[in-house]
Amino acid sequence: MEKIKIGIIGLGTVGSGVVKTLKNFDNKVQIQKIAVRNINKKRNINGLNENILTDNPYEIVNDKNIDIVVEVMGGINPAFDLLKQAINNGKHIVTANKELLAKHGEELFSIAKEKNIVILYEAAIAGGIPIIMPIKTILQGNKITKIDAILNGTTNYILTKMDEDGASYEKVLKEAQELGYAEADPTGDVECFDAAYKIVTLATISFNKRIKINGIYREGITKISDRDIKFANELGYKIKLIASAKLNDKEQADVRVHPMLVPKEHVLAKINNVTNAVMLSGTPVGEIMFTGPGAGEMPTASSVVGDILALCSEIKKTDYPLPMMRCNHTSEAERIEIGETENRFYISLNTIDTPGSIGVIGTICGNHNINLSDILQKGSNPDGTAEVVVITAICKEKDIKAALKDMKKSQAISKINNLIRVMN
Amino acid sequence: MEKIKIGIIGLGTVGSGVVKTLKNFDNKVQIQKIAVRNINKKRNINGLNENILTDNPYEIVNDKNIDIVVEVMGGINPAFDLLKQAINNGKHIVTANKELLAKHGEELFSIAKEKNIVILYEAAIAGGIPIIMPIKTILQGNKITKIDAILNGTTNYILTKMDEDGASYEKVLKEAQELGYAEADPTGDVECFDAAYKIVTLATISFNKRIKINGIYREGITKISDRDIKFANELGYKIKLIASAKLNDKEQADVRVHPMLVPKEHVLAKINNVTNAVMLSGTPVGEIMFTGPGAGEMPTASSVVGDILALCSEIKKTDYPLPMMRCNHTSEAERIEIGETENRFYISLNTIDTPGSIGVIGTICGNHNINLSDILQKGSNPDGTAEVVVITAICKEKDIKAALKDMKKSQAISKINNLIRVMN
Repeated sequence: MEKIKIGIIGLGTVGSGVVKTLKNFDNKVQIQKIAVRNINKKRNINGLNENILTDNPYEIVNDKNIDIVVEVMGGINPAFDLLKQAINNGKHIVTANKELLAKHGEELFSIAKEKNIVILYEAAIAGGIPIIMPIKTILQGNKITKIDAILNGTTNYILTKMDEDGASYEKVLKEAQELGYAEADPTGDVECFDAAYKIVTLATISFNKRIKINGIYREGITKISDRDIKFANELGYKIKLIASAKLNDKEQADVRVHPMLVPKEHVLAKINNVTNAVMLSGTPVGEIMFTGPGAGEMPTASSVVGDILALCSEIKKTDYPLPMMRCNHTSEAERIEIGETENRFYISLNTIDTPGSIGVIGTICGNHNINLSDILQKGSNPDGTAEVVVITAICKEKDIKAALKDMKKSQAISKINNLIRVMN
Repeated sequence: MEKIKIGIIGLGTVGSGVVKTLKNFDNKVQIQKIAVRNINKKRNINGLNENILTDNPYEIVNDKNIDIVVEVMGGINPAFDLLKQAINNGKHIVTANKELLAKHGEELFSIAKEKNIVILYEAAIAGGIPIIMPIKTILQGNKITKIDAILNGTTNYILTKMDEDGASYEKVLKEAQELGYAEADPTGDVECFDAAYKIVTLATISFNKRIKINGIYREGITKISDRDIKFANELGYKIKLIASAKLNDKEQADVRVHPMLVPKEHVLAKINNVTNAVMLSGTPVGEIMFTGPGAGEMPTASSVVGDILALCSEIKKTDYPLPMMRCNHTSEAERIEIGETENRFYISLNTIDTPGSIGVIGTICGNHNINLSDILQKGSNPDGTAEVVVITAICKEKDIKAALKDMKKSQAISKINNLIRVMN
């Protein structure tokens, strides 16, 4: 059997895992070239032939012998240009680049379609968890209308530790950085850019409509306090960073990433540390969930290698390989304005004078058609203020925002500490 | 585009769900014929054209126009003969028949290979949960060595209710029968034939070695008492029916189905009611889990229709459709004797005279190289006996069986109530 020849761009954590794993498949896959940043760096990767390293990734995308380009370098530049060139040169693509897919997927898939090229990207979403291929293949008979997912291990680790240790965000972030679970600049994770990239692509393939990254609602975890986590626990909830996507009856999409209070008995409340989880609802399947390692050298390699082997099984044997894995969502999804979306809300605030002020909270909410379902107050502070936490019934985002404005103006309320959405 | 023509054998729960779901895909799939038992039965299935019903399933397997035969009738006869004939007639197969696959899969796959036919069976294992296609496609770079699964909704429902209500097996079974969750003759479920069929096929494709149904260890849930569930809870466990498969370093398989005490914090302990779950461990992916509805009209239809659409996407376009979904395990797995397998064990017994007899239990276990990790005794009965529960450290099955024999002979022990394996 003729071996399929691949070129790998990037030999960091994921690239190394791919090289190690492909050793078991050297009867069908041959690594032709690997592009690295520093060709002289000392490496210790089992199965690596150092003679095939290059520091020029364009050598890979222009190599006539290469069938598949595996991009595991990340970022937009030069990955975007490299993949465009690779596709134009007739090479199939396996990528783990969630940012590139979220920002430029539309263009890449449209060139790929023109060139009869397959782009696979299982590793870009939820690391080792099989999710893209199942949605595209065995679940294709479903109309998927809802996704709730934990797609970022770093923030889930931070929230888990804050919950377990009762510690502050800042303290846990520092620990996570020391353990290598968070980067020195944690912005991409804690401000949820990472999860946003992933949910955009996941929603696009699930809904068969393109979801654009611009304008999806994104809110990080940096404002979650240890007191929020404590109050949430007392009310029966865990705080999780949830990436969600819904499609309503009018085919309008509501895609967002933000922290949520999740009822303790909900399965997503039990997903801890760096584990990821994707919960899908569709017809006819109902509700299914996929759980596993969302990052890491070897789990991510599982997905990259799965994509490579899928391509190997069909390319060179048919003129139209992997038909199910093609992109077929050309129309853009209509979006629901965030103000029109509905949720329950957790509001933490400080009141001046407790009995009357709880009345004020109720009145303000009532004025905006918001019912309250839970109220929690624990004594009052020496300065006469009291910390009050309320959870609302389902209401519109624009109504809660208007109510908050009124609360800020109220004499009875000295401070709004936090507003967090609540999962039903 | 030319429509793919299918024939469906069986129009019970699953068949009806398939017909309803395929209505959404009538631009690519045409239902040519449906074989039913009673052609005059009144049916109310949205999307069903009653003119295509037949009571002779051989009309379907011999129909020259049919490309795919969908078998959702269940059982061995006449399904086995029908599918052999269909394959010999060049038709691709989609089946939900776990019993047929477990007992005659080897023969079916070997004829299919000869005839270049694809047999798909996602619905046969874990209903709506995507598991077969993910293992065969995106996870194919993995060496899977361990599966722990809850594959039978009826028994999981019974065990959940026994746990929640503190009720006896007999009482809960009766309720389950009234609710339609258990059949009038519940043997197939409660004696775990159903789960055994499923784990055999799941282990076969996961290990790439054929596992034969004969000789896999199978033990039902009928002997689980409300007291076992109570004691398990006190010791920090839930009792679940676990279908498991392991492959050791010597490539020997250990495949079985039996109740187990599962630590409460283990994810499988939290899978309740009719939900199914499959936990896979492999290299490089690590541990991943799939959860969802393991049965039911619409979830099962999701898997059957997923298989049909997968075939539609490739047949008639290539000479060798769906290469990844072919059977490639021709060698039979070597098996570990059940006596050589290792577990922790829960033993519930009645002693005559408590202080001395706990010493006897310890001595007998010690004589067979078995250490104890937990001992639970709650007072003693008016007749001078006491109920004692112990949990052992990991030991060999043959050692625990020998110890039990000695216990039965002992004057200090009046009765052995139950022996249940414990998950680590």
